[in-house]
Amino acid sequence: MDKNRKTELYEFYKSCLLEDCIPFWLNHSLDHEYGGYFTCLDREGKVFSTDKSVWFQGRGLWIYSRLCNALGKRDEWLEAARLGYEFLVNYCFDTDGRMFFQVTRDGKPLRKRRYLFSETFAIIALAEYYKATGNMAALDKAKSIYKMILSIYDNPANDPYKITPKVYSETRAMKAMAVPMILLNTNYILREIDNVNCKCSGNACDCSVNYADIAKMLTKEIIEDFLKPEEKALFETVGINGERLDTPAGRCINPGHSIEASWFLMKEAEYQKDTGLMQKALNILDWSLDLGWDKEYGGISYYADIEGKPIEQLEWDMKLWWPHTEALYALLLAYKNTDKQKYLDWYDKVHNYTFDRFPDKEYGEWYGYLHRDGTVSHTLKGSMWKGPFHIPRALLFCMQLLED
Amino acid sequence: MDKNRKTELYEFYKSCLLEDCIPFWLNHSLDHEYGGYFTCLDREGKVFSTDKSVWFQGRGLWIYSRLCNALGKRDEWLEAARLGYEFLVNYCFDTDGRMFFQVTRDGKPLRKRRYLFSETFAIIALAEYYKATGNMAALDKAKSIYKMILSIYDNPANDPYKITPKVYSETRAMKAMAVPMILLNTNYILREIDNVNCKCSGNACDCSVNYADIAKMLTKEIIEDFLKPEEKALFETVGINGERLDTPAGRCINPGHSIEASWFLMKEAEYQKDTGLMQKALNILDWSLDLGWDKEYGGISYYADIEGKPIEQLEWDMKLWWPHTEALYALLLAYKNTDKQKYLDWYDKVHNYTFDRFPDKEYGEWYGYLHRDGTVSHTLKGSMWKGPFHIPRALLFCMQLLED
Repeated sequence: MDKNRKTELYEFYKSCLLEDCIPFWLNHSLDHEYGGYFTCLDREGKVFSTDKSVWFQGRGLWIYSRLCNALGKRDEWLEAARLGYEFLVNYCFDTDGRMFFQVTRDGKPLRKRRYLFSETFAIIALAEYYKATGNMAALDKAKSIYKMILSIYDNPANDPYKITPKVYSETRAMKAMAVPMILLNTNYILREIDNVNCKCSGNACDCSVNYADIAKMLTKEIIEDFLKPEEKALFETVGINGERLDTPAGRCINPGHSIEASWFLMKEAEYQKDTGLMQKALNILDWSLDLGWDKEYGGISYYADIEGKPIEQLEWDMKLWWPHTEALYALLLAYKNTDKQKYLDWYDKVHNYTFDRFPDKEYGEWYGYLHRDGTVSHTLKGSMWKGPFHIPRALLFCMQLLED
Repeated sequence: MDKNRKTELYEFYKSCLLEDCIPFWLNHSLDHEYGGYFTCLDREGKVFSTDKSVWFQGRGLWIYSRLCNALGKRDEWLEAARLGYEFLVNYCFDTDGRMFFQVTRDGKPLRKRRYLFSETFAIIALAEYYKATGNMAALDKAKSIYKMILSIYDNPANDPYKITPKVYSETRAMKAMAVPMILLNTNYILREIDNVNCKCSGNACDCSVNYADIAKMLTKEIIEDFLKPEEKALFETVGINGERLDTPAGRCINPGHSIEASWFLMKEAEYQKDTGLMQKALNILDWSLDLGWDKEYGGISYYADIEGKPIEQLEWDMKLWWPHTEALYALLLAYKNTDKQKYLDWYDKVHNYTFDRFPDKEYGEWYGYLHRDGTVSHTLKGSMWKGPFHIPRALLFCMQLLED
């Protein structure tokens, strides 16, 4: 990629991030009365539900803190982060240490789920907030949540939340790629911040979290249990020992999720200087794009069945914003690591599709959901599932790669 | 409607039912080895998952038994019913009396859910099977499940299944229209069959189920708590005392579900000779079609927000088969009860949309899921949610109305 194109892309992403995306969320999403963030916003930014997503209290806090850490502190970002931090700490934790999934505007619990994503987003958020502010209590809390989550990962019986199991594990014991995947990213971010703090260089020390061993264990599980090179796919769900399952869930591929996992693995491969792991991550990216790219209408489909059998999810062929943002960053990172033209070609294809269709030129920010044919199916800007995370993260990370 | 059109429609529906729909399921869905029914069938009828839906063990048993009761016994229907009956009774009940939601091919439990739909479908199935075969154990079991479900409806604390609550009721106590709605239909079918058996004419007797009072209580709850004439809508979810909720769930209308509820209420109004109730049911039908019909592409949309605010369900604008089958029967029934041309006009519109788009002219039976624009999004014929129920029920019920 020549220098002019790099500069042009850098300026373009910077303008999308700082003149469109972040102002939209700062203007419409902050709850100055109760703290925290609304994310259920309509096309114009009006709140259509005041219920708060705990995922996005963490994800919002992370992005505002990260912006400070990456681009320099700004009062409006610090204030937005403070609003999220206080709401997160005061209202998003149950007495057992686990977090809720959804709370009311004023912080009363609505839902608590078995999954640990609320916690992983809180961990990276609190660590990043510590880095932006020096608030040591935030880092301590991040690390103590991380230790709890690792102990549950190590042995589910350690989970203080005794929720009724969803599927009878005596009949069919399964596990989800999402778990080691999100933990790998959490570990990466926390290691980056905490290492600076404790000078342990990624090895065990009195911070009592052995980031290096954890990263190796998580990577190994993803590669050995979920990646099936003979089928050229990273599976979302496998048997408890990595067995391929011949069920709709066992055949299901989520190309956007695989692409996101590919760049988590590329970052880890860079960190560990592991060229074997880098190649495996690149394979995942290649295979996911081949399977997920819609040859007829363009864009990355939401789900695929690896054997081409029917998919039960009604939204399987829709085009969502986040697989596209993850692909943009994954492709730039792949290009940086390989210098291969094919990644630039794919990058151009994904970039053009994405910026032709997702941004709302009238009211700002992006549509999140398109029909298969690329027409808009939802005009909302945010929900329990869409908020200030994938878009600003990808824009910021792409900027940083282009700057290198 | 003139006599020729009636005869033509009767013959058309009869042929769809007996030469297309039922043969498809008899050919592909029966598990002659383990009993019961597969419903995860691809376009050609090939099984893509052997897991069994407990809903459809009941719904299939019901339709095969009902065909015998309505059109005269056939060995193939009785044998299909027997397969379902034995699997249902042997493998679909937990030791606490509640039923599973999903089991393996050989009947091992996979999922059990809080909802009581598995049970309500089993109740009508067992009652109908009793009527087809004289198997009194089936009727006894139907009535004993019904009594358990009514006791849970009366007081959720009576539920032997102590599953973790989904939403914190201390924060927001809600209830679903689906519950009194499905119980009203269950009560209707069981009353019809059990009355013949016990000669109690719908009043309390030693059968110890007071169908008349239950029907009145359920109807009252639907009309008083879920129907909001000032907003011209039947709501899916309200506060525990019928309060309108200003949340996405509280604003959500499912037009197909409302239309199905409208004919459950029309049947009850006919039974009770209650013209006030009949008019309310007709209003629900009118309002649901006005709100749900897609003015741009035709067909009945899956979800709507009563205030036109964003809808979070990704499939909100898709066209599913079952709202259309329910509308066909509801409109014929509305026409029979009112003789109003507007119902015939709507009927023609829905009939034409439905038969132009849903039937698979190459492999038989119907597609279940279309995009908003009417193109096919899923070629599967069955899943955990689609099987031999809405289509054959509507075809059979329409035939019977046209015969009157």
